[in-house]
Amino acid sequence: MVVGNDIKIKILMDRISFFNCDYMAGAHPEVLLYLCETNAIKTVGYGYDEFTEEAQRIILDACGLEQGAVFFLEGGTQTNKIVIDRILSRNDGVICCESGHINVHEAGAIEADGHKVIALPGREGKITASSIQNYMEEFLGDEANEHIVRPAMVYISYPTEYGTLYSHAELQEISEVCRRFNLPLYIDGARLAYGLAAKGSDLTLRDIANLADVFYIGGTKCGALFGEAVVTKNPELLPRFRSLMKLHGALLAKGRLPAVQFIALFKDNLYIRIGEHADILALKIKKGFIEKGFTPFIESFTNQQFFKLPNELVDRLKEKVGFELWGPKGEKESVVRFVTDWSTTEEDVDSLLALL
Amino acid sequence: MVVGNDIKIKILMDRISFFNCDYMAGAHPEVLLYLCETNAIKTVGYGYDEFTEEAQRIILDACGLEQGAVFFLEGGTQTNKIVIDRILSRNDGVICCESGHINVHEAGAIEADGHKVIALPGREGKITASSIQNYMEEFLGDEANEHIVRPAMVYISYPTEYGTLYSHAELQEISEVCRRFNLPLYIDGARLAYGLAAKGSDLTLRDIANLADVFYIGGTKCGALFGEAVVTKNPELLPRFRSLMKLHGALLAKGRLPAVQFIALFKDNLYIRIGEHADILALKIKKGFIEKGFTPFIESFTNQQFFKLPNELVDRLKEKVGFELWGPKGEKESVVRFVTDWSTTEEDVDSLLALL
Amino acid sequence: MVVGNDIKIKILMDRISFFNCDYMAGAHPEVLLYLCETNAIKTVGYGYDEFTEEAQRIILDACGLEQGAVFFLEGGTQTNKIVIDRILSRNDGVICCESGHINVHEAGAIEADGHKVIALPGREGKITASSIQNYMEEFLGDEANEHIVRPAMVYISYPTEYGTLYSHAELQEISEVCRRFNLPLYIDGARLAYGLAAKGSDLTLRDIANLADVFYIGGTKCGALFGEAVVTKNPELLPRFRSLMKLHGALLAKGRLPAVQFIALFKDNLYIRIGEHADILALKIKKGFIEKGFTPFIESFTNQQFFKLPNELVDRLKEKVGFELWGPKGEKESVVRFVTDWSTTEEDVDSLLALL
Amino acid sequence: MVVGNDIKIKILMDRISFFNCDYMAGAHPEVLLYLCETNAIKTVGYGYDEFTEEAQRIILDACGLEQGAVFFLEGGTQTNKIVIDRILSRNDGVICCESGHINVHEAGAIEADGHKVIALPGREGKITASSIQNYMEEFLGDEANEHIVRPAMVYISYPTEYGTLYSHAELQEISEVCRRFNLPLYIDGARLAYGLAAKGSDLTLRDIANLADVFYIGGTKCGALFGEAVVTKNPELLPRFRSLMKLHGALLAKGRLPAVQFIALFKDNLYIRIGEHADILALKIKKGFIEKGFTPFIESFTNQQFFKLPNELVDRLKEKVGFELWGPKGEKESVVRFVTDWSTTEEDVDSLLALL
Repeated sequence: MVVGNDIKIKILMDRISFFNCDYMAGAHPEVLLYLCETNAIKTVGYGYDEFTEEAQRIILDACGLEQGAVFFLEGGTQTNKIVIDRILSRNDGVICCESGHINVHEAGAIEADGHKVIALPGREGKITASSIQNYMEEFLGDEANEHIVRPAMVYISYPTEYGTLYSHAELQEISEVCRRFNLPLYIDGARLAYGLAAKGSDLTLRDIANLADVFYIGGTKCGALFGEAVVTKNPELLPRFRSLMKLHGALLAKGRLPAVQFIALFKDNLYIRIGEHADILALKIKKGFIEKGFTPFIESFTNQQFFKLPNELVDRLKEKVGFELWGPKGEKESVVRFVTDWSTTEEDVDSLLALL
Repeated sequence: MVVGNDIKIKILMDRISFFNCDYMAGAHPEVLLYLCETNAIKTVGYGYDEFTEEAQRIILDACGLEQGAVFFLEGGTQTNKIVIDRILSRNDGVICCESGHINVHEAGAIEADGHKVIALPGREGKITASSIQNYMEEFLGDEANEHIVRPAMVYISYPTEYGTLYSHAELQEISEVCRRFNLPLYIDGARLAYGLAAKGSDLTLRDIANLADVFYIGGTKCGALFGEAVVTKNPELLPRFRSLMKLHGALLAKGRLPAVQFIALFKDNLYIRIGEHADILALKIKKGFIEKGFTPFIESFTNQQFFKLPNELVDRLKEKVGFELWGPKGEKESVVRFVTDWSTTEEDVDSLLALL
Repeated sequence: MVVGNDIKIKILMDRISFFNCDYMAGAHPEVLLYLCETNAIKTVGYGYDEFTEEAQRIILDACGLEQGAVFFLEGGTQTNKIVIDRILSRNDGVICCESGHINVHEAGAIEADGHKVIALPGREGKITASSIQNYMEEFLGDEANEHIVRPAMVYISYPTEYGTLYSHAELQEISEVCRRFNLPLYIDGARLAYGLAAKGSDLTLRDIANLADVFYIGGTKCGALFGEAVVTKNPELLPRFRSLMKLHGALLAKGRLPAVQFIALFKDNLYIRIGEHADILALKIKKGFIEKGFTPFIESFTNQQFFKLPNELVDRLKEKVGFELWGPKGEKESVVRFVTDWSTTEEDVDSLLALL
Repeated sequence: MVVGNDIKIKILMDRISFFNCDYMAGAHPEVLLYLCETNAIKTVGYGYDEFTEEAQRIILDACGLEQGAVFFLEGGTQTNKIVIDRILSRNDGVICCESGHINVHEAGAIEADGHKVIALPGREGKITASSIQNYMEEFLGDEANEHIVRPAMVYISYPTEYGTLYSHAELQEISEVCRRFNLPLYIDGARLAYGLAAKGSDLTLRDIANLADVFYIGGTKCGALFGEAVVTKNPELLPRFRSLMKLHGALLAKGRLPAVQFIALFKDNLYIRIGEHADILALKIKKGFIEKGFTPFIESFTNQQFFKLPNELVDRLKEKVGFELWGPKGEKESVVRFVTDWSTTEEDVDSLLALL
């Protein structure tokens, strides 16, 4: 087959390695292979097929849930949007960290469905149980709170947008506050693989499934072509969810596609292997920069590493390597981000560090 | 690789052939192959990559448009929802046939964004230029029309939900009425391949690109894993469209995926070949039923064929073959639908007809 | 005080009487007087005052409800919009007659909140229990109904937009079907006074309060400056309703204003007296036209009367009297509507009939 | 008339004076009188009457606008909601101060229509031209800003929620920044009378009409029963506004009611007289507290005065006088608010100060 043989990826081809993000390549080969193996099989549409059933069972098992529900969606913003739209009533809002993805980088997807994002101040992407508690007490104590959006769920991301992680104790505290105030806790796991595999993380998939009311296992940024798996131990929180997916244009006709990918991702521990691979390479980058005298901008143990570097170095690296500025360019120094994923190699990292 | 080797597609495996819908199998092999070939290549995300640029150019060329815009989305409902949400103002509605997909089978996706679907009576899935004109004249003639939703665009499907086709003359008339009343004309081409390839159709892709203001070339039901290509000759109709896609959770991180598939679909005329293959087999089914004395319920020349059959025959066929009832089961007879696609074989059709 | 003494209502002043609608004058004098009497009294805002409490009690008593809830809103479309938005979930729709106010004359107010209006064919503004039942059975019988908007409540108007009335038996049947399918029944009572007072009506306020799940007692068209009273015997259907009113911009700061008016409307049976006055004059108009050989276009016993008249007569009447065409002007004959209210006098009617 | 003669306003009647808010009484007598004088006159509905035309002309004249548009709405939240919904496209947001009414006290009314409120830090209720400029520059400088809500208008309140005022210079700077970034500037004038009449204000109604793109003249809190007048010098900013009002349930059938009130409010300078009356009494309260050694919590020259008082004093005052805590009760001291309006008397103020 010669389709597109003459395509030139010219902009990127002249870089020796890429750390721009974790969605630059296609799927991990094991995922792709299983898509190919199953391609000719005919199933019913819209997620009533046996691949979906199989993937749901595998994921519930991995989460240690005897019962629960699993739904497959295509991307992170779509998943956040639909889960939040399902949990919130018309006049409810969702609490999140001011740096939360839903607050800053989803183009108003939550508000577009009529819901206010209630942003609390945070630190390195994380909010605390006490900040949630304080907000709720103030809200409930206000006699005129009919005029204020009622907080009705909490959103956190794990790992956060800064690559940081909640500890088991922190997450448990948040979970308890949420229970006390009857706030479903929803965890955005777009990069969950990198958190689960992280050195120093004391949270397992089972912990998350237990402490969260709803969460999703990210596929797109963790080795799939696309796909996110929403999991809940309490299906009553997501009634008529498939119909809501349809309403939001998110019910794939070939509904088995994400399920097929998740079956592959959960075969032979692939999901964690992908996380470990990327985390190890990310920490190698971190170590390399530290050895050259640079201090991490944020202490991250996952696949995103942030450094504040002199602009001269930034410019020089930019000529050879793909990566992104984090925020606007500073006068003398700028914060940059390096991201690894399944497709990153030791050689990629070495070529980067050799430039320091 | 042995992932999922033990999966049993038990429900379906005991049928000898399947005509339930055109999204039962994965992608056409040429599409899948190109996804594999390009999988390891790294590109930027969110559709700023070179595959997307290439696919956009190929599609505009095929449409005979020197300028215009092409956007890639994941599914049909999502595409309808976002295009309509972009074109309509807050207090506008979209005219369509009462059997139109957006009116009956999208779970309220259009209304969910605040827009009324203004359903006009139709015939076999089609509306006429004069019915649009009459509605507009009545609306404009009503002094109190501030209290009535303003019709601000027209939606038709080609082929329709019944497999029928507008002629060039019919579409031209509709296009002219739309222009007269300043109504953008939007064509849902979920099954466009089957229309373009249909025996007796006098509409080319260029005609459609010219007569419609916006339309989409369906991928999901025409050989792709997923993906639809929105095309407009007038980009001003779809301002800031990518941001709106993001808001609707429809901007894929690995944005090249639909583009890669469309490159393959437009290579060596594959898109039309898929349409021809399916149409020919659909007409063979039609001919076979007619020869046995059955009259088509609707006169379709595309990949969907409808027959009213005695319930006894329906039940007997159901035991061996996959297909769907169209509407509720009747007392003595029921309408059934047979659908073909790239994965349908001559043997599939022969095995069906042998049961008559 | 001389404010505005020189205002000229020139367009209308040259007519001898007006039957355009039932909201041409201000409030019934007894309503206005009570607004004046209570004007200087200070109360808390937003409907927590004692007038509101008093009006709620009076209305529940009049409805024969020992418990329930009453909320005051400003206008009919606003009331329909907020009640429906409260009862429906995100992916639900409301069943109504195709001529229902929410379907045709509210500028898409229901859809603007994301809800589909599911219009059933009707007769003279009324739908039947069996048409609701049939729709529900078809919906529930469709295996793919996740793709279809779920009907989750029923809207009817009493009197209807054509001035017609449901009988007790008809309403009871509808109420029973609604209960069977778990559909809250909501009655739009914008012109309730004219229905309750109508000769031949066998429905009392208590019947309506009992057969409907939610309904409203119209003030704006029945003698108030503005104001509608939403009543439910089952407050759980309208949770956090005041907060939703605020969200919709419908929570008046001087929240007592509608309550003060409803206290006056329910004092000494004023509400029914207003209905009777208008109905009697409307029937006098009807009788007058019939005696001149004209047949009513619709058989109405309330304050709206419809006749199909020769255009020559329509034109001649138009020169002297205010009234409205109902729909577009016909070639030879046109349908016209005459409306009465508290401000219509015997002389007004006599002057109209004298022109025949 | 004896309607409701036995009503007991028991909760409030045992206070000697009330400073809770500026919407405790009905309308200023001159407003009420004109409603009575015009009550029997019949006009067409929905704001096509001559009172509305007259009021529109009067207001444009007072604003020094030769052309422009005026629309009448019922309340402040409703007005903010509809104006913002009209100006913003689907994927746009509105910039405001974090203490802005739309951000904190409207129950999510703006988000309910799909729009993000972009809250900037402020001081005493005010934002600055430079904070707007910085936000816009950062937004425009972000290459990935398709993922961020586009700021597309600016909302400020005058007076602010803290009773403070922008100077002419400050407002002009904001207006210029808005023009530079093509952001319509919208001013919430719920309490405009108190700002226009304030000692030390250098902004006239004409200045506001000129510097704002859209603003509203508050009636509800400034002497009307209800009603706000939206004014724009550029009607193209508010196309099809009446239809949007209908969609939001805000088009009164008796549409003349707010117009009648605004005619009275603008007769013989009543609107400013009301403002002056309330401001003078508010400053008398301020002076009285200062003389007793208390420092204003915020420096306000309008009808809202804020003091941080010892809880012992707060409790003692609460027994005799109506007023509100501003925020939660502190440990030793609490912030309280005293509000005056047309109905406040010298005796009310004296009775309050006598308690210090």
